[in-house]
Amino acid sequence: MSIKSNTVTFPGRFAMHRGGHLMSPTLAYETWGTLSAARDNAILIFSGLSPSAHAASSESDPSAGWWEDMIGPGLPLDTDRFFVIAVNSLGSCFGSTGPASVNPESGEIYRLAFPVLTMEDIAASAKLVVGYLGIEKLHAVIGCSMGGMSGLAYCVMYPGSTRAFVSISACTRSLPFAIAVRSLQRELIRRDPKWQNGNYDRSDPPLDGQRMARKLGMMTYRSAEEWEQRFGRERATDIQNPGEQFKIDFAIEAYLQNRADQFSGGFDANCYLYLSRASDLFDFSEHGGSLKAAFANLRLERTLVIGVTTDILFPLRQQRELAAGFKVVCKDTTLIELDCLRGHDSFLVEMDAFRPVICDFFEGECR
Amino acid sequence: MSIKSNTVTFPGRFAMHRGGHLMSPTLAYETWGTLSAARDNAILIFSGLSPSAHAASSESDPSAGWWEDMIGPGLPLDTDRFFVIAVNSLGSCFGSTGPASVNPESGEIYRLAFPVLTMEDIAASAKLVVGYLGIEKLHAVIGCSMGGMSGLAYCVMYPGSTRAFVSISACTRSLPFAIAVRSLQRELIRRDPKWQNGNYDRSDPPLDGQRMARKLGMMTYRSAEEWEQRFGRERATDIQNPGEQFKIDFAIEAYLQNRADQFSGGFDANCYLYLSRASDLFDFSEHGGSLKAAFANLRLERTLVIGVTTDILFPLRQQRELAAGFKVVCKDTTLIELDCLRGHDSFLVEMDAFRPVICDFFEGECR
Repeated sequence: MSIKSNTVTFPGRFAMHRGGHLMSPTLAYETWGTLSAARDNAILIFSGLSPSAHAASSESDPSAGWWEDMIGPGLPLDTDRFFVIAVNSLGSCFGSTGPASVNPESGEIYRLAFPVLTMEDIAASAKLVVGYLGIEKLHAVIGCSMGGMSGLAYCVMYPGSTRAFVSISACTRSLPFAIAVRSLQRELIRRDPKWQNGNYDRSDPPLDGQRMARKLGMMTYRSAEEWEQRFGRERATDIQNPGEQFKIDFAIEAYLQNRADQFSGGFDANCYLYLSRASDLFDFSEHGGSLKAAFANLRLERTLVIGVTTDILFPLRQQRELAAGFKVVCKDTTLIELDCLRGHDSFLVEMDAFRPVICDFFEGECR
Repeated sequence: MSIKSNTVTFPGRFAMHRGGHLMSPTLAYETWGTLSAARDNAILIFSGLSPSAHAASSESDPSAGWWEDMIGPGLPLDTDRFFVIAVNSLGSCFGSTGPASVNPESGEIYRLAFPVLTMEDIAASAKLVVGYLGIEKLHAVIGCSMGGMSGLAYCVMYPGSTRAFVSISACTRSLPFAIAVRSLQRELIRRDPKWQNGNYDRSDPPLDGQRMARKLGMMTYRSAEEWEQRFGRERATDIQNPGEQFKIDFAIEAYLQNRADQFSGGFDANCYLYLSRASDLFDFSEHGGSLKAAFANLRLERTLVIGVTTDILFPLRQQRELAAGFKVVCKDTTLIELDCLRGHDSFLVEMDAFRPVICDFFEGECR
């Protein structure tokens, strides 16, 4: 993946939430639309664990972004009306400082010397970018999946800094099932002999572990029902060694192999480990001592919570918990439970279901 | 695990369902209760993938069995009334011939030279044991999890050989989600460098792969709801290296590690691979050309289908499919959907929910 995002470096020490610091971190970001004279039309997007800041195409990078059908003229995040900002999460590997970056203090790649990463660090670094762009108060923060947690951190760490918050398939804190999945994903990478305790040869990274972690991820990003309709018991057609046992028999196995191959080469293994653990560690209740107290610290005019019936990673009961918490401090709270087939990933692939909801929230006239 | 099951060896060639043969296979089995003079009170149990034939304690082996609370005097499988038989599945490693056994034709351990294993082979070999015990027609076949598939194979391969069939948390054929999980479990073992293409040192087997496969298994054997109630976000108390990143933070991670350690040493890796793939390959519809035709080939007087609301590996819709299929050819069919918390494993751990249902079916007076 070639990164064409803008970057900005913030000189000096950036203190990390759980200790340690980064020296002069760089953040990659992209923007679409025009900031109004009153500087009151900016929307900040926090992404899931894996995307870059390239949420949509632009003149400088015409390739499709990860939310291409959501951002643009006449789309729900209408760039004729809004100034949309996406930041590559701190700790990631698409232009922002992370474990794959060189530590300017040592001249070495951070690797496992990178401090413990948290959602609060991702939020604080995004706040620097927002300030750099000359924006004091955002029109809205939108967070998808892991980005819902970093977005929530942003809202509670900087109360009153955004008018609205949109949480998509996210949560206040991860459930043990999600922690179990991520923990095993990390173990798969760590046990790949090529991982070398984080000191892998970057031209020969722990791809087998990364691929298996991605396969496990796919089992929780999609839904059993989708796969039943899509694959059933269809056999794989391109089996290379049909006589060989324990290779691929079924289409679902070939699909997972294919998806794992696509993803794993492009993402740094250590960055993945840090972002994954940060997702486990986040607990909104730490911002007040209890969930109730944390919600009470928010200053929001409007919130929207979207969840999906088939999501097993961030299930509906977590969406209801978020909406109930927002409702106490923000009367204008809406909970939308979408009956999409594609599980947690629906916000990336079932755009026909998500577009009208986002469009309504931003009072647009969407295509 | 010390195996105290009885064994019986059947001289000659045992033809395997998908080709190849075993020479003079041995089957391990245990029995409880007394076969009636009319030889009409026998109940055959097919187990899930991992248990031995030791379903309950006995004089010769007083250790608790895997279904200890179900089999015995006054229990649902009442040994004052029934002669209960459990057979260690062909292909397993607890006394029955499997990939860890010595091939008498070569003098070598089978390992990957073991022929492709199927549910039909497990059924056919169990039928030999039933015949050896002098039983022509069983009172009932009971199959749990994978055993539901081998039990179904038994019923369709030998129509009229059992009066009743009890299917517990099983299916007509595995869904792509279950195949995806098992496929990744197999890959975890195969990619462990110690697996050595099946030729591992048996004193130093691919335990890391086996442990990770077990962890993934536990995520589908239990339920997210159980873990939420049981662990929440509790931290692990016995962290050995608290400063070390990416080790264990949460109680759920420590629990999975503990469960994986318990299981993995006792089960042969190649046997696991064969039984796992056999579970994927089974398709009841092959016994007639369609599910409808396969069901039409059954000759059963009574059936009972039990499923659990929180089972994600063999979900309720598969239980409903089984019950609907049985109903067409067997009016006396009952479907019981139990609202247990512990997912697929409920039949092993939520005995208070399962006992009354099994007891009613066998018209007992249970404790």
